[in-house]
Amino acid sequence: MNKFDYYNPTRILFGKDRLGELDKVVPANARVLIIYGGGSVKKYGTLSKVQESLGDRVVFEFGGVEPNPRFETLMKAVAIAKEEAVDFLLAVGGGSVLDGTKFVAIASKYEGEDAAELLKYGFAGPPVEEALPIGTVLTLPATGSEMNSGAVISYEKAKWPILHPLTFPQFSFLDPELTMTLPKAQVANGIVDAFIHVVEQYVTVPVDARFVDRTAEGILQTLIEVGPKTLADPDNYAARANMMWCATMALNGLIATGVPQDWTTHMIGHELTAMFGIDHGKTLAIIQPAVWKVRKEMKRAKLLQYAERVWGITEGSEDQRIDQGIERTTAFFEELGVATHLQSYGISASQIDAIVSQLEKHGMTALSESHDVTLEVSREILLQAM
Amino acid sequence: MNKFDYYNPTRILFGKDRLGELDKVVPANARVLIIYGGGSVKKYGTLSKVQESLGDRVVFEFGGVEPNPRFETLMKAVAIAKEEAVDFLLAVGGGSVLDGTKFVAIASKYEGEDAAELLKYGFAGPPVEEALPIGTVLTLPATGSEMNSGAVISYEKAKWPILHPLTFPQFSFLDPELTMTLPKAQVANGIVDAFIHVVEQYVTVPVDARFVDRTAEGILQTLIEVGPKTLADPDNYAARANMMWCATMALNGLIATGVPQDWTTHMIGHELTAMFGIDHGKTLAIIQPAVWKVRKEMKRAKLLQYAERVWGITEGSEDQRIDQGIERTTAFFEELGVATHLQSYGISASQIDAIVSQLEKHGMTALSESHDVTLEVSREILLQAM
Repeated sequence: MNKFDYYNPTRILFGKDRLGELDKVVPANARVLIIYGGGSVKKYGTLSKVQESLGDRVVFEFGGVEPNPRFETLMKAVAIAKEEAVDFLLAVGGGSVLDGTKFVAIASKYEGEDAAELLKYGFAGPPVEEALPIGTVLTLPATGSEMNSGAVISYEKAKWPILHPLTFPQFSFLDPELTMTLPKAQVANGIVDAFIHVVEQYVTVPVDARFVDRTAEGILQTLIEVGPKTLADPDNYAARANMMWCATMALNGLIATGVPQDWTTHMIGHELTAMFGIDHGKTLAIIQPAVWKVRKEMKRAKLLQYAERVWGITEGSEDQRIDQGIERTTAFFEELGVATHLQSYGISASQIDAIVSQLEKHGMTALSESHDVTLEVSREILLQAM
Repeated sequence: MNKFDYYNPTRILFGKDRLGELDKVVPANARVLIIYGGGSVKKYGTLSKVQESLGDRVVFEFGGVEPNPRFETLMKAVAIAKEEAVDFLLAVGGGSVLDGTKFVAIASKYEGEDAAELLKYGFAGPPVEEALPIGTVLTLPATGSEMNSGAVISYEKAKWPILHPLTFPQFSFLDPELTMTLPKAQVANGIVDAFIHVVEQYVTVPVDARFVDRTAEGILQTLIEVGPKTLADPDNYAARANMMWCATMALNGLIATGVPQDWTTHMIGHELTAMFGIDHGKTLAIIQPAVWKVRKEMKRAKLLQYAERVWGITEGSEDQRIDQGIERTTAFFEELGVATHLQSYGISASQIDAIVSQLEKHGMTALSESHDVTLEVSREILLQAM
């Protein structure tokens, strides 16, 4: 078990019909900017419930944050925040809205000339000391953004991770009922996203971290159980609730405690989204099985543990069990309606060079827990994913 | 899955040889009161490492906090804190020292005439708005006090729970090596304490809370695996590390998210400690199996799940599986060297009336997740525990 730091101050308010409690967690005299996405929060009445709960507070609104939120869009929200002296940001939506709001929180307090500079610090985080406080109302369980301090912003045809302790939401409302109106494809993407978050922290190399291993396995088993149920029966509250809490736990730092992490799949996936506009969750379903096939030796011990404990595979040789574990994973994604091969998205082998070039351009030349996924290995992974 | 709030802002610094980092988490100009217990932190050099790391800060010390920390002892620390205008408390020790420090944190800012009043609010917490900030260096994994806001204080031959959001430690150092010098009996008590914390949140009634169920099961399985190892091989770092992190996770709110809780065992156990001086962990090992036997019908579904998922018991009738699960639990405690019957501690059936009277005196007349463990049921449990 490796040494680690763990810190997560976000307050969670979980359960249905709780938006009225916004009044007690948003500061009484706050000047609030509500940030949302494509309008479904208006259509389904979430926004009006939020507004009602905020009562007499001065409230501004900024809608139109797109999936894979763009720097240029977010800077319009920053302009409003600065002009109106906003002192609290309330994100209402899914991971893209929450991620975008985190960037707005930092950029609104940034004094430099070009806020795009903030994107260039990667996982180290920009050297800022102030950000607007954030609260969130989550409507799409997937990214974990509701209980972590990270975000991914799209800028100049690339996706830029940005992390900062000041962007932990102060609170997040998790109401499973708010997720019932989501399109099935978004729910499926969310299930895959949460699933991959777990395995990128779990299927690495063993370090005898039993709490994390078993908690990770529990989340995976739960997603496997409730994922198809949420698609088949969108009004199943229990399934939605389990899915939602698992998605949050998948990326709030908890199952990173004391273990190596391998974000290869996310990093290659980001290029696919930036270049071809493929949904984030779908890129992960394409890349992860290929990573495991190419990196089988390095991940042997954990792949065996994964096959046995998550999928109950105990028969056959080691290689057979590993292969079965990977096959079951792929079948699970496909069952959710998420295709797992590049060619299903119209991408051919001749385009792999261009993808590898983008990885190189963005410095993704030594990925994985062991930093040995070079551009050549990434190429092999992409070929495997055809 | 029930609705819930979750909030836990404690920063964890986990791993060996990290006490030097105290310098960066204790405020630079703090006037620090170090609170510790019986002197083993002096003997084994922990205290001097702490002092060294605090550098030029003004540091006071208060030693002698006893197991089941007493109000009268703690008020001596409060006197120092007030007299010396202390503005940061650093607890160095196990659960009793940490619990005691939480009381000192509140009492040092209390303006009322009699600080014992603070103890009379139970789980609702006293109506105070200020407390000294706390940091901790944990030397005994057991109570979870290092990452929660609760404490139990002994006063007038009773144990008083006290909770307040202001008493979450700002940070806790968890160094598994610091636990290697503990006497075996204390380690064993700690394993039992953590184990019972989990089952009091897990063996209740099913509410389809899968993340919590599986995480609880994972902690129990880990304690079963590493518990005997830590006793047999005190220098086994991996075993100590797993035990330590599991003990923290057992009572930091995480596995309480969305589930009922049944603290019957703790409440009855507290009376045994207050009346007879039996170690806290030992009282739990006595009472928990008896609670399960008496409450078998009410807890049937979760007892079956516990038997199967934690102990792997799948053969036999439902009743047989439940009974086997309880037997395996008792055998586990006994294997750790912790006796599980009242008579092993010299208590006879004739003393049960007196114990029940104390429960009545302290208002413990409707215990459990369903509030139907009356004094009569508690009597039955105590008889069962003979």
